[in-house]
Amino acid sequence: MNKTDILIIGGGPAGVVSAVTAKKNYPEKNVTLVRDKNRVVVPCGIPYVFNRLDSVEKNIMPDKSLEKNNVNLIIDKATSLDTENKTASFEKGDEINYEKLIIATGSTPILPPIEGANIKGVWQIKKDFEYLANLREAVIKSKSVVIVGGGFIGVELAEELSRIEGIKITIVEKLKHCLATTFDEGFTVAAEEMLKNKGVEIKTGCMVEKIIGKDKVEQVILTGGEELPADLVILSIGAKPNVALIEDTQIKTGKYGGIWVDEYMRTSEQDVFAIGDCSETRDFFTGQHVPVMLASTASMEARVAGSNLYQLKFLKQNKGSLNTFSTYIDGLVLGVVGLTEEKANSDGFEIVTGEAQCTNHHPGTLPGTKPVVVKLVFSKSSGTLLGAQIMGPENMSEFINIVSLAIQEKTTAYDLEFLQVSTHPLLTPAPTVSPIINASRSAIEKIEKK
Amino acid sequence: MNKTDILIIGGGPAGVVSAVTAKKNYPEKNVTLVRDKNRVVVPCGIPYVFNRLDSVEKNIMPDKSLEKNNVNLIIDKATSLDTENKTASFEKGDEINYEKLIIATGSTPILPPIEGANIKGVWQIKKDFEYLANLREAVIKSKSVVIVGGGFIGVELAEELSRIEGIKITIVEKLKHCLATTFDEGFTVAAEEMLKNKGVEIKTGCMVEKIIGKDKVEQVILTGGEELPADLVILSIGAKPNVALIEDTQIKTGKYGGIWVDEYMRTSEQDVFAIGDCSETRDFFTGQHVPVMLASTASMEARVAGSNLYQLKFLKQNKGSLNTFSTYIDGLVLGVVGLTEEKANSDGFEIVTGEAQCTNHHPGTLPGTKPVVVKLVFSKSSGTLLGAQIMGPENMSEFINIVSLAIQEKTTAYDLEFLQVSTHPLLTPAPTVSPIINASRSAIEKIEKK
Repeated sequence: MNKTDILIIGGGPAGVVSAVTAKKNYPEKNVTLVRDKNRVVVPCGIPYVFNRLDSVEKNIMPDKSLEKNNVNLIIDKATSLDTENKTASFEKGDEINYEKLIIATGSTPILPPIEGANIKGVWQIKKDFEYLANLREAVIKSKSVVIVGGGFIGVELAEELSRIEGIKITIVEKLKHCLATTFDEGFTVAAEEMLKNKGVEIKTGCMVEKIIGKDKVEQVILTGGEELPADLVILSIGAKPNVALIEDTQIKTGKYGGIWVDEYMRTSEQDVFAIGDCSETRDFFTGQHVPVMLASTASMEARVAGSNLYQLKFLKQNKGSLNTFSTYIDGLVLGVVGLTEEKANSDGFEIVTGEAQCTNHHPGTLPGTKPVVVKLVFSKSSGTLLGAQIMGPENMSEFINIVSLAIQEKTTAYDLEFLQVSTHPLLTPAPTVSPIINASRSAIEKIEKK
Repeated sequence: MNKTDILIIGGGPAGVVSAVTAKKNYPEKNVTLVRDKNRVVVPCGIPYVFNRLDSVEKNIMPDKSLEKNNVNLIIDKATSLDTENKTASFEKGDEINYEKLIIATGSTPILPPIEGANIKGVWQIKKDFEYLANLREAVIKSKSVVIVGGGFIGVELAEELSRIEGIKITIVEKLKHCLATTFDEGFTVAAEEMLKNKGVEIKTGCMVEKIIGKDKVEQVILTGGEELPADLVILSIGAKPNVALIEDTQIKTGKYGGIWVDEYMRTSEQDVFAIGDCSETRDFFTGQHVPVMLASTASMEARVAGSNLYQLKFLKQNKGSLNTFSTYIDGLVLGVVGLTEEKANSDGFEIVTGEAQCTNHHPGTLPGTKPVVVKLVFSKSSGTLLGAQIMGPENMSEFINIVSLAIQEKTTAYDLEFLQVSTHPLLTPAPTVSPIINASRSAIEKIEKK
């Protein structure tokens, strides 16, 4: 029986951040991270292994932050937990006794119940080095790829694959638009336009009826009857939390099957914490459980858990997920945080929106000048900022994080109206037409008319 | 005698923003803007007319926001004010009676008392279309340009001119480093390195003794005796507020010669407001008068004045300048807001700093990956954020505005430690090493050790 003070199971971003945070908060404690993979792929880098990164080898999370912070690293697979005796058992036969346990086992892509989903040539986006290396080889040899699911993984994959010559790419999305659960319509349409310009075919409002092939995928049949030729299919319709490890314990799960946690990331069992994709996430605005699995959320949860292991620190709680997310499609940055107009309406918020359009440089005659669109969502009664969406070129990459902070600080349109913004001709919109200020101003005019 | 409700004198960014804001807040009022130039150049775009913009014509502020908002535009030069009778007189003989007056007359470059400063071939950076068009022609024909003053105008000019083949460029800066009043040393040295890589010669810690030439500039003599050959000299050592218009009035000026104003941008005379470079600026942290002339500050002041013309709006005050500023030197973004470490120390603040280094992409194997450095300054007693500096590539352009908002919202290191940040492999640093979070964490460790 081995012994450690703080045991972390899972070596993805959440596990690593929690280990480093724990060691910084409790330097006298022994911290051990156990993961079941020799090499851990960077999850959000996966779409880019197919072209920009040349290989899966280039998409590996370095272990140097663990080494630098004296975190013990063990490669093994946890098979069971005994929360009463505070012990975890592992595949190679080891047992580790802990004072505090953090479960960070992540998620696995959902395999939809589609006929033919198990035919050779049908793939998923698994966070597994060898699997992805094989998928990469298969993709490069393929001529027609059908991506099932137009969420952010599907969209990023499609754009990356469009950079490889000779592959016909089709996205099949059941909703009206790609990214429709993430952005309001104006932004989803713009994203689709960028993909279409890259030659990607988009089939929305339809599902896959079945996948056909003898030895290997040959065709995808859509619900309307349309037949798409395909020599490779990638299913990217979402992920489910990895909770096999807690099956024989008293640890509770939540509405979406993830491990239930409180504001300090504690599970229903004493001294056991859960973070990242395997834990249940709450919404920042409503406190309700939401099926969110994002790096922004996981990293924050990991920092909260790593700060509260031995004593709760007030103000260091998880205040709920802001659902903040960015993507990049052929030179267009799309960012979102908090509530979209559609989500705010469906959640029952009384809102006003403010929009602004400008250019990313000033004057607009500068080479490389491109349009910027910002949409803000405010509470109508208080003017509090609830959400934002942006699209624009690369220099607007960090813009969404201004708004993310503004929401976390409960900033109102009246605060944002007088924001001092750093501007530069080659780097930002003009100070006279700052989109965060102009969109706030536009919302205030609507509030004052009420 | 003409009559208007709201009269604005000055057509630069401050004047235009105040006019548009006034019209939006008081749509029933008649708003008139008088400026003395047919065409107004974009002030911060001036360095870029020499190469990237091809011409001064491409660096003109459009009048469309004035037209769209029904602001009357008159081209004339204000010559005197009668604040008792609320009347302004103009060069062409007109008089305009106003209810409310906003003075936005801007600034003029300082002509230093250097021997030879009036020789042909010695120029300044004037916000004047014809002058700049002539300067542009002269620069393009020149072989060796000496820029006197390594502040942001001097540095941006040097970088722009280094893009024109065949010009030898030298900056002369009296302080230890270029940009030394704006950034801490690590950042100024990095900026200088970028300039040196572009072939710019930098002479720091010395001043110009005299400028020599018969019909035209031939040489610049430095205080140490060094002789620099020069066929063109640009003096960029700062600017002074344009206050000639108030000379025969009771309107008071402040410590640095600008028009004194209160928190609502009201001057010492009733119904007269002043904004932008011609008005005195107060520091956000100390309330003291500071010699700041920046577009970020001017635009905010213009919005404050335009909101408070007829009745003061509480919470719509000028809370003081945050001195936020960005520049771009050969692919390196440099941004600063609030207090640098040096300024905080000289102003008497008890501080801790936190630094973080990371890359602008993740994984760092992605093409185009470059380093990012962030330095944050916090109050040691409260953990409140007081300042930030960043350097990194283009996708970090808006990063400084996250921190600018954080300061305005009185955010602490403890808030920033759990910030939810939107990240993307191609657009931002990794969520696991977010520089704003890691720099805050590093400061917290220093605070907790105290």
